[in-house]
Amino acid sequence: MTDKKTALVISAHAADFVWRCGGAIALHQEKGYEVTIACLSFGERGESAKLWKQDGMTLDQVKVARKGEAEAAAAALGAHDIQFLDAGDYPLDLDRDQKFKLVDLIRKVQPSFMMSHSLYDPYNTDHMYATNVAMECRMIAQAWGHNPGEKVLGAPQLYLFEPHQTEQMGWKPDVFLDITPVWDKKRAAIECMQGQEHLWTYYTNVAENRGNHFRRNSGGQAGGRAAKYAEGFQSIYPRTVDEL
Amino acid sequence: MTDKKTALVISAHAADFVWRCGGAIALHQEKGYEVTIACLSFGERGESAKLWKQDGMTLDQVKVARKGEAEAAAAALGAHDIQFLDAGDYPLDLDRDQKFKLVDLIRKVQPSFMMSHSLYDPYNTDHMYATNVAMECRMIAQAWGHNPGEKVLGAPQLYLFEPHQTEQMGWKPDVFLDITPVWDKKRAAIECMQGQEHLWTYYTNVAENRGNHFRRNSGGQAGGRAAKYAEGFQSIYPRTVDEL
Amino acid sequence: MTDKKTALVISAHAADFVWRCGGAIALHQEKGYEVTIACLSFGERGESAKLWKQDGMTLDQVKVARKGEAEAAAAALGAHDIQFLDAGDYPLDLDRDQKFKLVDLIRKVQPSFMMSHSLYDPYNTDHMYATNVAMECRMIAQAWGHNPGEKVLGAPQLYLFEPHQTEQMGWKPDVFLDITPVWDKKRAAIECMQGQEHLWTYYTNVAENRGNHFRRNSGGQAGGRAAKYAEGFQSIYPRTVDEL
Amino acid sequence: MTDKKTALVISAHAADFVWRCGGAIALHQEKGYEVTIACLSFGERGESAKLWKQDGMTLDQVKVARKGEAEAAAAALGAHDIQFLDAGDYPLDLDRDQKFKLVDLIRKVQPSFMMSHSLYDPYNTDHMYATNVAMECRMIAQAWGHNPGEKVLGAPQLYLFEPHQTEQMGWKPDVFLDITPVWDKKRAAIECMQGQEHLWTYYTNVAENRGNHFRRNSGGQAGGRAAKYAEGFQSIYPRTVDEL
Amino acid sequence: MTDKKTALVISAHAADFVWRCGGAIALHQEKGYEVTIACLSFGERGESAKLWKQDGMTLDQVKVARKGEAEAAAAALGAHDIQFLDAGDYPLDLDRDQKFKLVDLIRKVQPSFMMSHSLYDPYNTDHMYATNVAMECRMIAQAWGHNPGEKVLGAPQLYLFEPHQTEQMGWKPDVFLDITPVWDKKRAAIECMQGQEHLWTYYTNVAENRGNHFRRNSGGQAGGRAAKYAEGFQSIYPRTVDEL
Amino acid sequence: MTDKKTALVISAHAADFVWRCGGAIALHQEKGYEVTIACLSFGERGESAKLWKQDGMTLDQVKVARKGEAEAAAAALGAHDIQFLDAGDYPLDLDRDQKFKLVDLIRKVQPSFMMSHSLYDPYNTDHMYATNVAMECRMIAQAWGHNPGEKVLGAPQLYLFEPHQTEQMGWKPDVFLDITPVWDKKRAAIECMQGQEHLWTYYTNVAENRGNHFRRNSGGQAGGRAAKYAEGFQSIYPRTVDEL
Repeated sequence: MTDKKTALVISAHAADFVWRCGGAIALHQEKGYEVTIACLSFGERGESAKLWKQDGMTLDQVKVARKGEAEAAAAALGAHDIQFLDAGDYPLDLDRDQKFKLVDLIRKVQPSFMMSHSLYDPYNTDHMYATNVAMECRMIAQAWGHNPGEKVLGAPQLYLFEPHQTEQMGWKPDVFLDITPVWDKKRAAIECMQGQEHLWTYYTNVAENRGNHFRRNSGGQAGGRAAKYAEGFQSIYPRTVDEL
Repeated sequence: MTDKKTALVISAHAADFVWRCGGAIALHQEKGYEVTIACLSFGERGESAKLWKQDGMTLDQVKVARKGEAEAAAAALGAHDIQFLDAGDYPLDLDRDQKFKLVDLIRKVQPSFMMSHSLYDPYNTDHMYATNVAMECRMIAQAWGHNPGEKVLGAPQLYLFEPHQTEQMGWKPDVFLDITPVWDKKRAAIECMQGQEHLWTYYTNVAENRGNHFRRNSGGQAGGRAAKYAEGFQSIYPRTVDEL
Repeated sequence: MTDKKTALVISAHAADFVWRCGGAIALHQEKGYEVTIACLSFGERGESAKLWKQDGMTLDQVKVARKGEAEAAAAALGAHDIQFLDAGDYPLDLDRDQKFKLVDLIRKVQPSFMMSHSLYDPYNTDHMYATNVAMECRMIAQAWGHNPGEKVLGAPQLYLFEPHQTEQMGWKPDVFLDITPVWDKKRAAIECMQGQEHLWTYYTNVAENRGNHFRRNSGGQAGGRAAKYAEGFQSIYPRTVDEL
Repeated sequence: MTDKKTALVISAHAADFVWRCGGAIALHQEKGYEVTIACLSFGERGESAKLWKQDGMTLDQVKVARKGEAEAAAAALGAHDIQFLDAGDYPLDLDRDQKFKLVDLIRKVQPSFMMSHSLYDPYNTDHMYATNVAMECRMIAQAWGHNPGEKVLGAPQLYLFEPHQTEQMGWKPDVFLDITPVWDKKRAAIECMQGQEHLWTYYTNVAENRGNHFRRNSGGQAGGRAAKYAEGFQSIYPRTVDEL
Repeated sequence: MTDKKTALVISAHAADFVWRCGGAIALHQEKGYEVTIACLSFGERGESAKLWKQDGMTLDQVKVARKGEAEAAAAALGAHDIQFLDAGDYPLDLDRDQKFKLVDLIRKVQPSFMMSHSLYDPYNTDHMYATNVAMECRMIAQAWGHNPGEKVLGAPQLYLFEPHQTEQMGWKPDVFLDITPVWDKKRAAIECMQGQEHLWTYYTNVAENRGNHFRRNSGGQAGGRAAKYAEGFQSIYPRTVDEL
Repeated sequence: MTDKKTALVISAHAADFVWRCGGAIALHQEKGYEVTIACLSFGERGESAKLWKQDGMTLDQVKVARKGEAEAAAAALGAHDIQFLDAGDYPLDLDRDQKFKLVDLIRKVQPSFMMSHSLYDPYNTDHMYATNVAMECRMIAQAWGHNPGEKVLGAPQLYLFEPHQTEQMGWKPDVFLDITPVWDKKRAAIECMQGQEHLWTYYTNVAENRGNHFRRNSGGQAGGRAAKYAEGFQSIYPRTVDEL
């Protein structure tokens, strides 16, 4: 559609994009994509336990702290842009105006692909809500009658990035991305998340084990690619190709 | 793994490959792949009604006729090779030796990708049996202890081609292939199936409507590719990529 | 319940009923049913690309045009009635009052069966939203405490009509309806959709291929019915019968 | 196809048909169908605990006793015929010859519909095996090249009757049959099962509660049919109809 | 977490808790748990047909009557507490304030486990809505930033109790609870539901048949426990144990 | 049933039990269970790549080597017994006699619970075959008519242990077991697998991350148990309990 290749990540809370698709962000940025991150909330109420344990903490202080961490992580990944919709969390809930702001962003970015959460998450209803919003706003962005005259959206893939406890979410990856070349950037972004240090090792283990899956599925002991770190994604829509 | 790109189609009965992946065969052959077709049976008992309605027909005569049709269709598609395992149909049932012959073929071809039927088919248990055999023989071909010294198989994708009555089979395509450039070859192969003329229009409709799906998923009214004919496939294994 | 047999089609956008169940509407009307169509929106924003490409087009003009097309199609099918709820599209969203208006309509019609969209549609969230509304309003219409004194609803079947790209929606038909006697009416209704001419051939192909499925499932080469055109539906509730 | 309406029940063990579809057998027999029951085994090893607790019991004695019970139950239901294939149980396993005998029976009966077990049963692998055999033999019976000259089978529905612990089997009924008129016959057949008296009340409860489901789905408190006893079935294939 | 063991039942309508988990309530209360019941609505519009058939009935009168029945049933079960949120039914719809009241209750109770409805219910959308609310409010109750300073919730199991027509809801029990010791209390609670006498036998049958399932799964004829009555539940989250 | 608590692990290949349930074996052994491991094959053809790369290797030599590793691992775990059925691998295929030997073992052990592979595995059909055999032989072991006079089996749970690439197998754990106290034993057993050193880190990562899941599901930041290593299992049958 355009010369420029772009991508848009829709993250329910401020830190989600780091653990789940930090490698994809850094890698595509290195490949010349402009990757934009949209944080629907800061995770200020539900994913900032460490901050709330401090005396006298306020909601605004938590938001500022979380925003700072997310911006630092986005910078570590070399992301093109990060936007905060500040729609509130636990529960996340976008009204029509907020959805239309997200549509504006989608149309502005004109992403080659989008990313969001799993379809189901009984631990965190914000996550599945964000995915539904992503599908709904993708549809609105395709409507010729929404802000007529604007460039409408094509048909970008929506990749669901890896949730915590994948099997409980019914999430099944159909593509593994080799993120070995940008692993250092992802690790640096992870270390920006000062409030969630208990997850650093967890997601390093995930990246290593997804690397094993990459090797297996690219040929295993009979020719598999020596990827050390990988990320997995589940596609919502079928691909269209000229060669299998 | 090798310089030569190859593919292997495992077809339960002689004609299945024509309707379900004739376009993929012709297209990849044009792209320099060597595509081999393995017909596990001729469909001699169960898919040759028109022949059996002739007086004095014998099983051998049916096999010869069906083999002829399949070879003509393979030629029309420009397929590299077509092999007949003659394992019998309705029901299809391969013993260990026949499975090992299929393993031999898989290893000889060293396919970049394989194709077979849907995982479930309550109308035609031969179809789902063939898919199970394809998965089992793929596994055996990967075993270093099977005929030690032979080149073992890597990790080729197994694509499930389109069954009849897709929804009843629980088949869901995740990739559409534009077969517009080779449609004439596929139609010619279809017309080799003299005994099943009632299906010519059916699968032409399918190809046209899959073309619509290709256009939709490649961008729709906002930039979709003008494919006229397409085929759909369901992938069993995740892909491994360097870019989404 | 009553002497008169009736049916109610709940269509998210103005044109959906034509492609997806135009045959069922015309056929049951011929059989003496009174079939009412409820269009929740005109599809004015999201399904009117051709109109929006005209200079100076306004939302009201699009609505008028789409309403005209839908009324013409309903007339071509011989439908008893068509109602427009004008709830807006992309996204479709009914508030409590609008839902209660739909409940009023359901109670007035007292349908023998209802029809709506598939349960899942990642391309078009309006569609799955409409189905949820249909289930919710069916439930409200059954409540003795909703507008006490009104005749409450029985337990009509809810048929999900055929979506675009059936496999992506997880839609599985469990009944095929022979629409051969009314095919001309359905085709005429299809041709009322001037803005979507690219779908005319598509849905003619669908009708032909569903005819093939009808023949197969009614006996195939050993006695199948010679249906030329058919429509498929998925039932939400179990049937109750006196004979299998 | 023929003037005579017929049905065929394929029961893994001798008693299965009684609990699971005794009502359907008696009811259709009263409606003029000829219903044939095929018991693949006697349930002699796995479903005859009470007999095996007797001193000196032999396999042949158990078979004779179980056969007697099954014949008495079939008589109580007024079944047209009952056939015993004696293929062994725990595990049930039919070789090619035994399958072809079942095909012979299917062709002889030319059933309007068939019945068998659920698709999945982790408690009793014989049950799911029987269903697979039913699907496979239905397919063979449709083959024009199997015993050419015989009348081939059409496309009868395959109903899956109610398993024990329905939810564990993933069984979902899509049709309820009112068996109130023949309940006395079903109860009499149940009482023929002297070795399984602990199940009499269980399946009476099932029949009563399925009667509740029948009432609900036929209209509930707003016009539901006053069925007292019912049986539920899951259909494998879509129906073909002229009216919804 | 605390010395006291507690449980919280979230019931869409006033009577649901009686049929679906009355045994679990009475049993755990006897074991020293404090069980709290939260009725989101009285079922005043949709589940009080008998009352609405009386002349001059008003919504408030129905609420009072239903509340009385529910309190009597809770007393019969020995429940620790019953709370009514009066959020309205058919449809049930909680705004943010009402959700936060439910969160307050969850935090106050600090339940060892929670209970609610099935994930899917096409007959009664209130039921699946209640389950979604239960998951959402469980998540909010875990947020350190929601009413900072309050004791946050741990990770209680959410059990889905038995719906009507289990198979239609896709509900699958993974645990059976022996309620034989408290059956008399459950039956007494059931008989408090004067308006739904047609369900008394139904749910007695259910309890007896679930008793059969308990016996089967605890050893069957080779050592099963002689439970006479049981209830089944589906778990949303995995368990954490020190011994299998 | 008996005083002694016992367990039986059914492993398709020699090494499977180490990675997938080594912790459960060691832990239950420490708790006084007698845990028996049944290796259906040595994985001699398909899971011994490193050995086959040595010059002059024979099938018998591979079997001996693999047997030695498995015995060493079993010893490291403190397992009560390890049995080798030597049924062959790639493909694994048990005839009736071999199944009956497994039934003999099941009856001899009288396990409180059994363990085997996932229900589906498109990478390794031996795995899903082993699970089917486990279910079938469990059923045969329950048959009073199989070797009458022997003690029949009760109703032990069948736990499916963790496969490689869990999401591709459709495997979903419903229970996490804290194996922290025996982690050293599991790691020692893992290190017995000299031929598969590339998996040591992989399964250490898995154990650590399952530890995270254990902590989350036992209370998370609000009281979760400080497990460092865990294993996950999927249950086939419902549990029967006296308290939730």
